[in-house]
Amino acid sequence: MRQYEVFELILKGAEPDGSWIHVDVDAEFRLNGTVTRVRGFYMGGGEYGIRFYPDTPGKCSYIVKGAVWAEGEEEVLPAFADSHGRVQTRGTHFAFEDKTPYLPFGTTVYAMLHQDQELMEQTFRTLEESPFNKLRLCVFPIDFLYNKNEPEDYPFEGSAGRWNVQHPCMSFWSRLEETVRRLARMQIQTDLILFHPYDHGRWGFDEMTEEQNQSYLEYLLRRLSAFPSLWWSMANEYDVCRKKVEEWYQVEAFMAQGDPFHHLLSCHNCYKFWDMERRCITHASLQTKLIYCVGELKRRTGKPVIVDECCYEGNVPETWGCISGQELTRRFWRAAVSGAYCTHGEAFLDPQNIMWWTRGGILKGESVPRIAFLKKLMEELPGPLEPIPCYVERLKKLAGASPEEQAKAAEADPGMRMVRSFAGLGDEMELYASREAEWKGRCGDEAFLVFYDMRCYGEDVLELPENRTYTLELIDVWNMTRIRLADGATGSVRLRLPGKENMAVLALACTPST
Amino acid sequence: MRQYEVFELILKGAEPDGSWIHVDVDAEFRLNGTVTRVRGFYMGGGEYGIRFYPDTPGKCSYIVKGAVWAEGEEEVLPAFADSHGRVQTRGTHFAFEDKTPYLPFGTTVYAMLHQDQELMEQTFRTLEESPFNKLRLCVFPIDFLYNKNEPEDYPFEGSAGRWNVQHPCMSFWSRLEETVRRLARMQIQTDLILFHPYDHGRWGFDEMTEEQNQSYLEYLLRRLSAFPSLWWSMANEYDVCRKKVEEWYQVEAFMAQGDPFHHLLSCHNCYKFWDMERRCITHASLQTKLIYCVGELKRRTGKPVIVDECCYEGNVPETWGCISGQELTRRFWRAAVSGAYCTHGEAFLDPQNIMWWTRGGILKGESVPRIAFLKKLMEELPGPLEPIPCYVERLKKLAGASPEEQAKAAEADPGMRMVRSFAGLGDEMELYASREAEWKGRCGDEAFLVFYDMRCYGEDVLELPENRTYTLELIDVWNMTRIRLADGATGSVRLRLPGKENMAVLALACTPST
Repeated sequence: MRQYEVFELILKGAEPDGSWIHVDVDAEFRLNGTVTRVRGFYMGGGEYGIRFYPDTPGKCSYIVKGAVWAEGEEEVLPAFADSHGRVQTRGTHFAFEDKTPYLPFGTTVYAMLHQDQELMEQTFRTLEESPFNKLRLCVFPIDFLYNKNEPEDYPFEGSAGRWNVQHPCMSFWSRLEETVRRLARMQIQTDLILFHPYDHGRWGFDEMTEEQNQSYLEYLLRRLSAFPSLWWSMANEYDVCRKKVEEWYQVEAFMAQGDPFHHLLSCHNCYKFWDMERRCITHASLQTKLIYCVGELKRRTGKPVIVDECCYEGNVPETWGCISGQELTRRFWRAAVSGAYCTHGEAFLDPQNIMWWTRGGILKGESVPRIAFLKKLMEELPGPLEPIPCYVERLKKLAGASPEEQAKAAEADPGMRMVRSFAGLGDEMELYASREAEWKGRCGDEAFLVFYDMRCYGEDVLELPENRTYTLELIDVWNMTRIRLADGATGSVRLRLPGKENMAVLALACTPST
Repeated sequence: MRQYEVFELILKGAEPDGSWIHVDVDAEFRLNGTVTRVRGFYMGGGEYGIRFYPDTPGKCSYIVKGAVWAEGEEEVLPAFADSHGRVQTRGTHFAFEDKTPYLPFGTTVYAMLHQDQELMEQTFRTLEESPFNKLRLCVFPIDFLYNKNEPEDYPFEGSAGRWNVQHPCMSFWSRLEETVRRLARMQIQTDLILFHPYDHGRWGFDEMTEEQNQSYLEYLLRRLSAFPSLWWSMANEYDVCRKKVEEWYQVEAFMAQGDPFHHLLSCHNCYKFWDMERRCITHASLQTKLIYCVGELKRRTGKPVIVDECCYEGNVPETWGCISGQELTRRFWRAAVSGAYCTHGEAFLDPQNIMWWTRGGILKGESVPRIAFLKKLMEELPGPLEPIPCYVERLKKLAGASPEEQAKAAEADPGMRMVRSFAGLGDEMELYASREAEWKGRCGDEAFLVFYDMRCYGEDVLELPENRTYTLELIDVWNMTRIRLADGATGSVRLRLPGKENMAVLALACTPST
């Protein structure tokens, strides 16, 4: 046994009589006094698998009971140097279990599992050379615009409308778990999407009964939950699926309670954000083009925010897949400077309808090197960024205060004098604010990052702490240049800027706090 | 007398005893049986002016009574060929009195009147070569960022805080009216801003009493209302002025009732739109960066919409003056295709703080030739554009319907099946919709114009009427090219598009309706 690696027992037994899912195999692992109960899964061919995830070195004993029996004791050896365990939340950010920071820079290949071997191999090669460290993909196949190919197999035996949900298709699950393992070796987390609405009556995976859904999830949990690189995404676009919100609550509870290894759990919207204040939800997995909301969402919920869909780079004639590489790059920056994260996707028209966003293959867009540039910059920062509330956010907050508080705040900060006029906006406040967002983030006093977005400032004033000195860099987020503007900057600093779109300024403390 | 030209009587009399504004000079003009009462104004030097605007040829008699007396009869000759009368609303668009269409393409030099002669001359020269046909400017001087110069004179005699409002400063009013005349000769309408909040305690023009305000407006109406090229803009950013909404209602009523020639009347916001459904308001004069709202506003109110401020092209470090020429060009297109209009402004940092937006001078930006390109294209269209409600607008509308109507609409149009999920957005609907706006306009069946904005479509399908054939053109709104795509297009037409930002497609009917 090795810390942070899946431990697997394969035991011979009889083929199950009825369900291949609800097999009677229970195991108990006792590691350094902590007991973890896991259930085994049927692998086919009379074999049963039991998987355990040891999160710490030490002495581990186990006992397996039911359709198969086993007992043993092993030393869990310390993790390999390049192995960091599960990704977990850490405040409004993420880190691996060993405290190594994890900054999600994800991409999207929804139907990766449902393509032929050759295309999957090409996708792996592309990912290998990409900056991405998270991949969103679906368990169920997709029938949607540009995506009509029939997969080789399905999660269950049977055929459209006549699935034998109690009988998993072993080739499918092998491919899924091999994909997860292979992505993990490439340092890529698998953000696994459990349900989606893109079935359109073709296979009926979105119309299964509650009992069928639970059997499916039961097998998935038994078989996969020991893999450290997995995240659970309850749905893609939960709010356009057939399920009612109560059914989603059941899925949420089932995944949270049935997973002995407590993977990250979220739910991705089409229109309305899932309520990320719900206890079991570990982070937000948003679809939105309006990155401006993420800072406030972080502050309100104390959880990390990933904008998993903000429109793909591409040229399809759909509003969800047609932004330029420049615009996608800006959306990544807006999220990053707000202390959140953004996910990539690509949808370029293709004679064979092979588009990265669903089927994989090669990347054709212009944003990827810019995303890599941003990732490197973020990794070099002294810590995660937190958003600095911008002018309009401060106005918005103050608009809800009492007249006395408003008057007091306006006295302290002349910029807040507008609060009464602003408050007159009423319902339209959000709409107004959405266009006035400014992007400023900080790592305590160690670093300040301003993203000017499409604003072509010719100059600006940075307000830096007066007890530190800073190195200032001008960053062209599109042309990927970093130019030193000043050393030893402190306090209120006037900057000359080039008056162009896509600029950012980084102030990095070069002396310790005094 | 000439149709559409100011008729002016100057009569000698005694210098008024008290107020130079509320002088006792009443005139009655009877033209083709219609009686118009106008009041005279004092010009200084014992001279009184009476101005009348004849809107039709015919026999005109007049009688002046009070401090001065006169009587006469004249033939009103038909208008000169290049003279079209006042601009009036025509549905949700504008036309001159003689029915010549007027498409507002305005710009902004707020403090033009308060600059020295040399700079004003330079501004006139710049305007002469520009595409602009409307100019927003303020009566009162401006004290604001970058604008601190003291004007040579003011609307009244006196000095800061001690204005003799009853005693207009004649050099000021001469300059104002000469500016209006000169702009009119250049085919430029004057959108005159009566109040603004940029005084900051320097002169106190924003702190006058209600009586002082009414005296000021009384003089303005007596002296200027016969000029056909004037529009009244009650305020710039009314909602950050000191006046309460009831005081604005008084201004509105005063201008509407006191103006014998019924000029266009609007009120420009900072945050919250003025209620353009109010009876006296002829059109909307908005500040917004979110052009997406204008189509709905037109439909709801049946009045024309001008986005008089949508952020200036420039590089000042303020969120209101820092967009690229490309972005300003797009905002013009968004408005135009929605059947509305946009207004230009420019704020580039300058060693002498001479920025077009307030002080005039020269134009430095890149949007102006693109605005000229758009204006030419719009002028060539067979009529004014009306917006075609886009997908998200149709969803929004349907979201308010009964479940039965929703089901029926979804049956008829599969795209509407999402309505239940979309309705789940509730309060967030507007925010969502603001990012999903698509820009499509039409002149009946004569022309269709689609603006793809920042969407990089590589193809699209146009749905054209099947009883007409159309010429299709691909328009690059930034590079100002127009490429013929097809002749004889009809019905559902698939287009190949270049997959770039800033594209538009125009379909122009080439055969009469069958």
